[in-house]
Amino acid sequence: MDNRAIGIFDSGLGGLTAVKELRRLLPNEHIIYFGDTGRVPYGSRGRAIIQKYAMQDIAFLKQHDVKLILAACGTASSALTPQQTDCIGIPYSGVVLPSAQAACAATVSGRIGVIGTSATVRSGAYGRAIRSIRPDVHVFGNACPLFVPLVENGFIQPDNEITTKVAEQYLLPMRKEQIDVLILGCTHYPLIYSIIDRIFESKVTLIDPGREVARWAQGYLAQHGLLGEGDGRCEFYVSDSPEGFTETAALFMGENIKSDVTQVDIDAISELAL
Amino acid sequence: MDNRAIGIFDSGLGGLTAVKELRRLLPNEHIIYFGDTGRVPYGSRGRAIIQKYAMQDIAFLKQHDVKLILAACGTASSALTPQQTDCIGIPYSGVVLPSAQAACAATVSGRIGVIGTSATVRSGAYGRAIRSIRPDVHVFGNACPLFVPLVENGFIQPDNEITTKVAEQYLLPMRKEQIDVLILGCTHYPLIYSIIDRIFESKVTLIDPGREVARWAQGYLAQHGLLGEGDGRCEFYVSDSPEGFTETAALFMGENIKSDVTQVDIDAISELAL
Repeated sequence: MDNRAIGIFDSGLGGLTAVKELRRLLPNEHIIYFGDTGRVPYGSRGRAIIQKYAMQDIAFLKQHDVKLILAACGTASSALTPQQTDCIGIPYSGVVLPSAQAACAATVSGRIGVIGTSATVRSGAYGRAIRSIRPDVHVFGNACPLFVPLVENGFIQPDNEITTKVAEQYLLPMRKEQIDVLILGCTHYPLIYSIIDRIFESKVTLIDPGREVARWAQGYLAQHGLLGEGDGRCEFYVSDSPEGFTETAALFMGENIKSDVTQVDIDAISELAL
Repeated sequence: MDNRAIGIFDSGLGGLTAVKELRRLLPNEHIIYFGDTGRVPYGSRGRAIIQKYAMQDIAFLKQHDVKLILAACGTASSALTPQQTDCIGIPYSGVVLPSAQAACAATVSGRIGVIGTSATVRSGAYGRAIRSIRPDVHVFGNACPLFVPLVENGFIQPDNEITTKVAEQYLLPMRKEQIDVLILGCTHYPLIYSIIDRIFESKVTLIDPGREVARWAQGYLAQHGLLGEGDGRCEFYVSDSPEGFTETAALFMGENIKSDVTQVDIDAISELAL
């Protein structure tokens, strides 16, 4: 048993889809969430700056004596190198490997699609993870840079005409590749699950990265005797004003946030403090 | 005569529409541009963090011994207070007052629309500036938070169906208000000028904030004997990787960038150094 918290971070709010799943799977765990709302989005930035920001986010969570750190952000997960994550000194997982495992388990045709931010797709991280598990699989990637702003601006209704048009533009070329599994490689994308599902006529298995990293965490904690028996409280930290956070967070979490939200000066945290 | 540079900044690339105009009006001026590409966008953030970022940007430009500082960013211009800009110690203008002056000069009906980022519209800065010049004018504001991501992702073709649909959603309510002048309160918006113009059936005068702040600069320098007689060179600084900057910048500038682009660690610059 280990009652220390699980630390989880994202560039902004997308990672709350993982918190939702963690709370469902592990209702007794204490969760500390950091959303880098003062510097969101990460997905349109260069790799070095994403690495710097992500390592600062990790350094912040380490200050809270967490037992596990999860990068609930496709972009951060894809940008960090094994050399970097090995230095954390605390068990860590991003969303890439758990999602790749789920995709490899689900595919029958051996044709897997991956969508994500520009930085994620450019990194090729999902493809490498998939091929490390199943070298025979064909991977098709496409960047969907407008999905994050559409989700963050509330264009998420299942019949939203604008998001549907954007999604068609991004996804129809992938449908032609006859994939049978699609990794939603960014934790924002599950909020437009039904729009994406409709484009593939419900014939493709969609992999939710937040759900997969939460499952991985459950397995890891159970296997290592690290499960907590606490009251399941959540603490939220953000780098922009907490104002407005609770309303939008409720959208991602599927429940209202009762805890306080605290602002952090993330620039002041040295990523070298790890 | 003063051959020191004009310093100009933006959250990212939008301010290059002002550089384009500056180069047209003042071809002999040395220009130093800073684009905060590592922290773009500003328009979805809280006011305190926008103020912090903008003051860091200004502190960076001050290090270059510039004769004038221009905030070519609607969001930064709207967020800074007179108390803050008075402390700069160098002549300064944002885009708000020059654009408000142009709008007041152009309106016949006394009904002016203002569009901008969420932070800009929430600040009410354009409305205050307009009413300080013409208290009789009616001002109608609407936030257009998806315009910046659409422009930055290249959805700018005059017949782009998605941007047209988004623009209709944002602008049709404003058309009903029978405005005769519309301030494009964000330096990204001139890139979708023709889409916006079509929605108003070319019956509304569109005010380009980059052009207005450049005109203001020309007037100010001429009036104070500060015009330069140099070779009109431009220096570009950004806070994310310079990679890819020159291609996108050409889109905003309407000409290719021949100078080097240098990366700056903007977090490390204290806004208190002013």
